[in-house]
Amino acid sequence: MPEHTVTARLRLSGLCFLLQILTIILFAVFARYRPESSPGLCSQQPNCSWRSQDSGLQHPRSRAVHLQVLLGFGLLVAFLSRYGLGSVASSILLVAFAIQWAVLIQGFLYSFLNGKIYVGAQSMVGADFCAAAVLISTGAVLGRVNPIQMLLLTLLGVTLCALNEYVLLGLMGVNDSGGSLTVHTFGAYFGLMVSRILHQPHKDKRKTQQEDTGQQPDVFAVVGTICLWIFWPGFASATTVRNDAEPWVVLNVYFSLAASTLATFVLSPILCEESTVRVVQIQDATLASVAVMGMAGEMLVTPFGALSAGFLAGLIPPLGFRFLTPVLRSRLKIQDACGVHNVHGLPGVLGALLGTLLTALATADAYGGRLELVFPLVAQGSRTVTDQALGQLCALPITLLLATLGGIVTG
Amino acid sequence: MPEHTVTARLRLSGLCFLLQILTIILFAVFARYRPESSPGLCSQQPNCSWRSQDSGLQHPRSRAVHLQVLLGFGLLVAFLSRYGLGSVASSILLVAFAIQWAVLIQGFLYSFLNGKIYVGAQSMVGADFCAAAVLISTGAVLGRVNPIQMLLLTLLGVTLCALNEYVLLGLMGVNDSGGSLTVHTFGAYFGLMVSRILHQPHKDKRKTQQEDTGQQPDVFAVVGTICLWIFWPGFASATTVRNDAEPWVVLNVYFSLAASTLATFVLSPILCEESTVRVVQIQDATLASVAVMGMAGEMLVTPFGALSAGFLAGLIPPLGFRFLTPVLRSRLKIQDACGVHNVHGLPGVLGALLGTLLTALATADAYGGRLELVFPLVAQGSRTVTDQALGQLCALPITLLLATLGGIVTG
Amino acid sequence: MPEHTVTARLRLSGLCFLLQILTIILFAVFARYRPESSPGLCSQQPNCSWRSQDSGLQHPRSRAVHLQVLLGFGLLVAFLSRYGLGSVASSILLVAFAIQWAVLIQGFLYSFLNGKIYVGAQSMVGADFCAAAVLISTGAVLGRVNPIQMLLLTLLGVTLCALNEYVLLGLMGVNDSGGSLTVHTFGAYFGLMVSRILHQPHKDKRKTQQEDTGQQPDVFAVVGTICLWIFWPGFASATTVRNDAEPWVVLNVYFSLAASTLATFVLSPILCEESTVRVVQIQDATLASVAVMGMAGEMLVTPFGALSAGFLAGLIPPLGFRFLTPVLRSRLKIQDACGVHNVHGLPGVLGALLGTLLTALATADAYGGRLELVFPLVAQGSRTVTDQALGQLCALPITLLLATLGGIVTG
Repeated sequence: MPEHTVTARLRLSGLCFLLQILTIILFAVFARYRPESSPGLCSQQPNCSWRSQDSGLQHPRSRAVHLQVLLGFGLLVAFLSRYGLGSVASSILLVAFAIQWAVLIQGFLYSFLNGKIYVGAQSMVGADFCAAAVLISTGAVLGRVNPIQMLLLTLLGVTLCALNEYVLLGLMGVNDSGGSLTVHTFGAYFGLMVSRILHQPHKDKRKTQQEDTGQQPDVFAVVGTICLWIFWPGFASATTVRNDAEPWVVLNVYFSLAASTLATFVLSPILCEESTVRVVQIQDATLASVAVMGMAGEMLVTPFGALSAGFLAGLIPPLGFRFLTPVLRSRLKIQDACGVHNVHGLPGVLGALLGTLLTALATADAYGGRLELVFPLVAQGSRTVTDQALGQLCALPITLLLATLGGIVTG
Repeated sequence: MPEHTVTARLRLSGLCFLLQILTIILFAVFARYRPESSPGLCSQQPNCSWRSQDSGLQHPRSRAVHLQVLLGFGLLVAFLSRYGLGSVASSILLVAFAIQWAVLIQGFLYSFLNGKIYVGAQSMVGADFCAAAVLISTGAVLGRVNPIQMLLLTLLGVTLCALNEYVLLGLMGVNDSGGSLTVHTFGAYFGLMVSRILHQPHKDKRKTQQEDTGQQPDVFAVVGTICLWIFWPGFASATTVRNDAEPWVVLNVYFSLAASTLATFVLSPILCEESTVRVVQIQDATLASVAVMGMAGEMLVTPFGALSAGFLAGLIPPLGFRFLTPVLRSRLKIQDACGVHNVHGLPGVLGALLGTLLTALATADAYGGRLELVFPLVAQGSRTVTDQALGQLCALPITLLLATLGGIVTG
Repeated sequence: MPEHTVTARLRLSGLCFLLQILTIILFAVFARYRPESSPGLCSQQPNCSWRSQDSGLQHPRSRAVHLQVLLGFGLLVAFLSRYGLGSVASSILLVAFAIQWAVLIQGFLYSFLNGKIYVGAQSMVGADFCAAAVLISTGAVLGRVNPIQMLLLTLLGVTLCALNEYVLLGLMGVNDSGGSLTVHTFGAYFGLMVSRILHQPHKDKRKTQQEDTGQQPDVFAVVGTICLWIFWPGFASATTVRNDAEPWVVLNVYFSLAASTLATFVLSPILCEESTVRVVQIQDATLASVAVMGMAGEMLVTPFGALSAGFLAGLIPPLGFRFLTPVLRSRLKIQDACGVHNVHGLPGVLGALLGTLLTALATADAYGGRLELVFPLVAQGSRTVTDQALGQLCALPITLLLATLGGIVTG
């Protein structure tokens, strides 16, 4: 047994070394910093307006996204782990590699020019989105994969996530600034499919008994929830094109966060046997509300819409954990270690449907000058609102298909 | 007993549901997002110049205020709670509801126009200030109220706090950008009055024995203190009108934080029996120094003034805990679970007096171009410095009166 | 024994009081706020272009630096302390005093004019850098000095650090924006020299047995590592002159952080007996990578360079702890409580050498418009690239000399 452990550790060490050397070589050959004098590289490609931020102003947001990726998801993964703080180290390793790899893959897809890819601050934000999707996926299989499998899952997950994002945002012109589809839905179903393939009937029973944990996770949950409140509004608006449009997204997210918190207090006492609401449940609800707000955050034009959507989103995780997770586990043999289906998958799908509905209802009147910002193709007249809504709707099955197939292949 | 618990939980669930539905309906009827093309809504009302920030630039500060509200106060409340981490969940519920309610109430007071209220990023900052005041109040009664009572206390506290703020800032033109009066003094005395009314002589003895806690709170205190250092300077300057004026407030707060920390180390070893200074004491001192700086932060024109004021403020909590809290408890039958009187009440009152003194001493010479910023009415010539000082002084009894009456009614 | 403790506590209390009163008097006599209408005070002195930031824009970075100083280093010190959370309180005291003192000393060196020093937001950033250096020094002697000794160490350390910074940046025109030399190298060797002088052979054995700690430190390490990821890129670019140049530094630091994390996973399983990588090791690697990036961060013009440097930097701490620390302890009788030599000292020296190499290789072609920013004296034609490289190289022995001599005197 110790013999086996030593081999596994050396193999992890070797794999890290190989991947890092490979990445360094790829960066040496292909990657260059984007010269500041030519911010117009992106403009030479169609449909990449969503990334063409002023890199100077976008810097603080990039920082917020980083915190989000690491704290929000990393802790989400951490507090549900039953194997101590070692999984935090794995999560950080995963994020460190995912970011490097995502910069490369996204560079090839978006800014490959004259045999070089050009790296700027917006590459970092895109890489963070990919790392977030992969962290969600990891939540589904946590505790049943070793670090080596997690690295390979990251390798494939980042590639597929960048591809999915490129198809949706780059080719189809779908508006999904907060990542309802590209981050939450893709991450959740990719992880669930991997979990399905890795399913081993005998091991599961043992795990479920270890789900009661000490006080430590709650400290993480508190920090994670607070960070969600602080930094997600910035995360959701990180890829918004113009600065003056930001407030609506940010306020929408704030309102939906507040409403989802109350929703937890409404439903949890009814469904759970415990006498008090746990912070982990609040965190689940807030995560669900931001998954719903991902696509719709920019499209809602009244605070009351954000409150309603957040309230409904906050109802999903308690209901899902009570009724859906047992079904998933017994019927479909999908073990969902951290409940990513309830927290990210379902809310992401609902967010996409809500976004489609709002797109179909969009009128130039209600949006005013914001139309150009939210739906640039509609504002330019090259597309009708109905076409845009169809595009948004089609993005959902495409994401599901890519995530499912990718998950099966990876598994 | 379990019967009773189930009923209480269902009642909390129902109350949350009712309040959220009520808020959603009120938002649906009244609230609209402030259109970006017309930032001048505020300018149609007198005396609201203190809120007319550029919403684009103000965004990062709004984030800082949020962190402040949640981490600073939330953890202050959390670490003194003797009922485990359940009180963090209650605090988050309270903040989530207080923010929604404060946006509504402040909207009615400030930007009610044509039957609609207009919501923007500055509404969020105002709502955060109210949530902070209510969290301070909660600190006084913590451990003796259930979540339902806390929600009702929030409902009334936010309404009164917004009203007090409107009277002071909107009608009287008082300068209180950091909330010495509107946040700290109001919150503390409101909470103390509620605590006085709820006083039950027999229950108190049991509580005092539980005041020794484990190591958990200290971790929270460390995080809370660090966050105070980082984010309060931004919090104190969140409602400052112009950007180029910020540095003075921020530097004043930094210097007073540093001086108050040293004050803790001067006084604590003399007054306490413990051999080491606890982080909780440092946190109390820093909170006291920011309460003092709330009104005076903008008016101090030398760093040495900020150092002196911070040093004196840092002396208040140790002295208060040693000499004043026993008197309050035995004579006035006010039980102050988290020492909000020492940490927020007294420093807030002293901050208001200091602000009045500085206002009376203000000369156009010392302020230069800043006069227009700090005292817009004086700069416009519609008021003398003495009138302004009288106004600042009158604001103190008004706040105390409103807080006391409100606390009695709520209790 | 309790007699002795009471005396020590009263002496600490008295020392704090004296130092604070002294600082207040010095501030009262000398310090004034920099008037906003005249931002050009700095321009009246040569070679201070590195500080002449727009104070309005620099504000959020100043906040990031603060977090960095407190969380990053404070927690680094905290989690290795074996005396409970009391050392956090001491660290905060140290930072609070170091900031006040550094503002004074740096004010005398940089902006002494007509008998007054002018304090602005950039004074705070400079003071934070000094506080960081002193915190690193403290890491080397932690557990063997009492708070009074720490305060005196701060007093001398801040003075020498400000002097060293003034000689390097002000007089010699060296580019060291991230503090490879001024913060990391100076702090590490100053602390090590103090540790050498304080060496007491009999006490050491007792300490080493207490190095195994509980789970608490790991929580701190997680928070510290995450904060490093989030805030260090901003810290490293805090003194960069222009805004549009920032992205390269930030991206360089991000890439080196990611690469150093993988390096930890490559080397730790080989060198350590433990089966999993601990978060503390990741934190050490990330700290080493930022120490290397301190000087070179602005000079690297390709992402692949940052990846390579970060990867190599990440290899230093595991190797150092395995091979170097035992040698230091047994041969040189330097006890290095927190491994500051491996984490800050060596990487800082390597960073300085790398920076020198990159300076020597710098061509106007590769830098383009950035040349003026990174090497203003070269761009102005008053210096050749070789002269600048020689200057950078000379800065290293000067720093080492000052740190060593200062450490001996202080010890």
